[in-house]
Amino acid sequence: MEDKAIQTVKVGICGLGTVGSGVLKILSSNADIIASRAMKIEVARVAEKDFARAKDLLDRAGLSSVPISVDWHELVNDENIDIIVEVIGGVKVAKDIITAALQAGKSVVTANKDLMAACGGEMLHLAEENHTDLFFEASVAGGIPVIQAVKESLSGNRILQVMGIVNGTTNYILSNMAEKGSSFKAALKEAQELGYAEADPTNDVEGYDAARKIAILASIVFNSRVNDSMVATEGITNISSWDIAYAKEFGYVIKMVGIARCDDQSIEVRVHPLMISKDHPLASVRDSYNAVFVEGDAVEKTMFYGRGAGSLPTGSAIVGDIINAARNINHNCKSRWGCTCYKNLPIKPLAETISKYFVRLNVCDRPGVFAAITNILSEESVSMATVMQKRRTGGGEAEIVLITHLTPHAAIEKAISRIVDLDCVFAATSIIRVEDNEE
Amino acid sequence: MEDKAIQTVKVGICGLGTVGSGVLKILSSNADIIASRAMKIEVARVAEKDFARAKDLLDRAGLSSVPISVDWHELVNDENIDIIVEVIGGVKVAKDIITAALQAGKSVVTANKDLMAACGGEMLHLAEENHTDLFFEASVAGGIPVIQAVKESLSGNRILQVMGIVNGTTNYILSNMAEKGSSFKAALKEAQELGYAEADPTNDVEGYDAARKIAILASIVFNSRVNDSMVATEGITNISSWDIAYAKEFGYVIKMVGIARCDDQSIEVRVHPLMISKDHPLASVRDSYNAVFVEGDAVEKTMFYGRGAGSLPTGSAIVGDIINAARNINHNCKSRWGCTCYKNLPIKPLAETISKYFVRLNVCDRPGVFAAITNILSEESVSMATVMQKRRTGGGEAEIVLITHLTPHAAIEKAISRIVDLDCVFAATSIIRVEDNEE
Repeated sequence: MEDKAIQTVKVGICGLGTVGSGVLKILSSNADIIASRAMKIEVARVAEKDFARAKDLLDRAGLSSVPISVDWHELVNDENIDIIVEVIGGVKVAKDIITAALQAGKSVVTANKDLMAACGGEMLHLAEENHTDLFFEASVAGGIPVIQAVKESLSGNRILQVMGIVNGTTNYILSNMAEKGSSFKAALKEAQELGYAEADPTNDVEGYDAARKIAILASIVFNSRVNDSMVATEGITNISSWDIAYAKEFGYVIKMVGIARCDDQSIEVRVHPLMISKDHPLASVRDSYNAVFVEGDAVEKTMFYGRGAGSLPTGSAIVGDIINAARNINHNCKSRWGCTCYKNLPIKPLAETISKYFVRLNVCDRPGVFAAITNILSEESVSMATVMQKRRTGGGEAEIVLITHLTPHAAIEKAISRIVDLDCVFAATSIIRVEDNEE
Repeated sequence: MEDKAIQTVKVGICGLGTVGSGVLKILSSNADIIASRAMKIEVARVAEKDFARAKDLLDRAGLSSVPISVDWHELVNDENIDIIVEVIGGVKVAKDIITAALQAGKSVVTANKDLMAACGGEMLHLAEENHTDLFFEASVAGGIPVIQAVKESLSGNRILQVMGIVNGTTNYILSNMAEKGSSFKAALKEAQELGYAEADPTNDVEGYDAARKIAILASIVFNSRVNDSMVATEGITNISSWDIAYAKEFGYVIKMVGIARCDDQSIEVRVHPLMISKDHPLASVRDSYNAVFVEGDAVEKTMFYGRGAGSLPTGSAIVGDIINAARNINHNCKSRWGCTCYKNLPIKPLAETISKYFVRLNVCDRPGVFAAITNILSEESVSMATVMQKRRTGGGEAEIVLITHLTPHAAIEKAISRIVDLDCVFAATSIIRVEDNEE
């Protein structure tokens, strides 16, 4: 036991918002077990614009003596601080803080998915140049320890794919629609009332938030930098109760997933709604929970499940990183894991990606429509797995629902654009990818 | 990038059985990505009693030049070897190998649950004394990286409970019974034919294998050594198709779980069949998959899912540990994490543990039986949540099924023993714990 816990490691926390206050609470209430398991972690200083809020939070955490700075420079310039925790969010100021902290040789822990998805490579290289650590477990899927899992535990694997439910808001909305029969609008409203969705829900419901997380994961597992701007996104605003009902009938559940795959030549990475088999491990991830499904050539199928957001769950990931960083400081082995992007793979164009598709068409209720549609699909080499002429919707209209076999995105797009040009077809109401060869 | 991958780390593998051959295969086929992500890992020597088998496996892995020793001492005494991988299993020889390797200052990676559950504390302290590493990710839940998760990522949490489906054989049997309506005997036979169960299935079906894994997990999360001999076990051999049918009717699924809980005064740790709500994340873990559900005060509910056994999945965990150990060697920070058992908590006696219980009674089909039973339950302060006088089973017999509220184990045992003493009661056919306050 002689070489353990010889040093108190000092932490400066930038930002005492939702996540920062969670970090403070955990470091304070679990100080005893953290000290016994690893070493004493001391909050040396906090930076927070809202001084009164900071004072109140520190008092409530029993940390009244911790000095408060309104200016983050005071933390980065404090020679006594070993680790800077950046939890202010956003890109610009956060990048300034992290850059300055790394350049000062401090270890950095961040929850900042926006920054890591936009300039993770730059930040990680800066950490390496300064022989220090940059940890970002909390940037993906909140409290779920998936970054360490894919970066360390699974590092003997060639990773085949990652599929993640990495946005709790949209999972809450889709679960609500599936279980209570709510409309998208009603489910969104409920999510807003519960604080799961923001007043402007664009980032969540259009898949931009999930794109950042899948970009970070893809960069790690495929060892090639993927920024969020490279991720094709499609949101869930068009998912209707009918889609959910059909999904159920076919044995599927609709989830919004981030998908990343690699064939060693290029990376596929995108966010969209997906019909997955009800027996897939992701299918039973309900409510606002997150889960990341990872398939490797050795480990086979794994999944990591938990809270993707929230003050304490995200704080848990931050504190885990702080302890990890503190151990590296204590054992003089900072920069033990740096950036692992040693390849530079291109992103596969969306048009070339292959999927099964669920298609719902609003058509004229008359003979010959079906033949016209199947002719086009055949000409575009889109092969059908299932077809249902489901229901007469009244007023001379009907609905045709079909599921294709595996088809390039370009082919389905072309086929659908030709189909909706038919006089007898009013609209393609839904086009949703389907994944069902998983168990 | 200047301080990365400066050294080739040399590994000696003791045992080329199922797991050892998986390790060999991964180190060989993924040598390129492992070298690029971390550093070059070289298999320097293997020890295997069956020389011909070792020769064949090395040839097939493209590692024909690797020397084979029949005696493991040659690996432990080889000064060029940095890391010893112990995958021979069993306690006696494995303990000798690990002891000698640690005393020689080598890092050790093991998959040995029997050894770690029986003398994990001793082995980890020996590693500390010798300033080296002992990693054992593969000893629990095969490829699932749950040890690193609970030991590192979640180390800021006070862990409230761990519930694990950590035996693939019994999960396969119970899934088969639930989904195909098989009897226990038929499902066991199928598991044996598929190679999931051994000819003598005692270790699996009686819960002894699961006990080792939950002992290892409990030691880590509660920072107090739990050996497998402290774990109360109850197997699944008495689970019948009727139990499974009733479970379904009540909205439950029957799983064999290892449970560990801690109230800071004592540790509850046991293995037994459990009826869990069909909405609990563990309920959808089917087939031979494993999953470990971990609840912490900050992270809330998490779950880790994947393959709990098999050559490559278990090999994945071993190789992850090898890379971790190699990084520590390379960065001169061995013994970065040692044993974290700093408490010495007692095990709570089974009699004092509290649970809901499902009870199935075979009784006389006549008036007054019900009153006699409920009187005893009331006298023993066992409160009922649900009662169903389910079915007349013929020949003047009937079956009563009930579910209790939370009850101390001692109370249910006493009540049942009094109930089966009644003239009008033939037997208590099933007594199964129930867990339903999870979402």
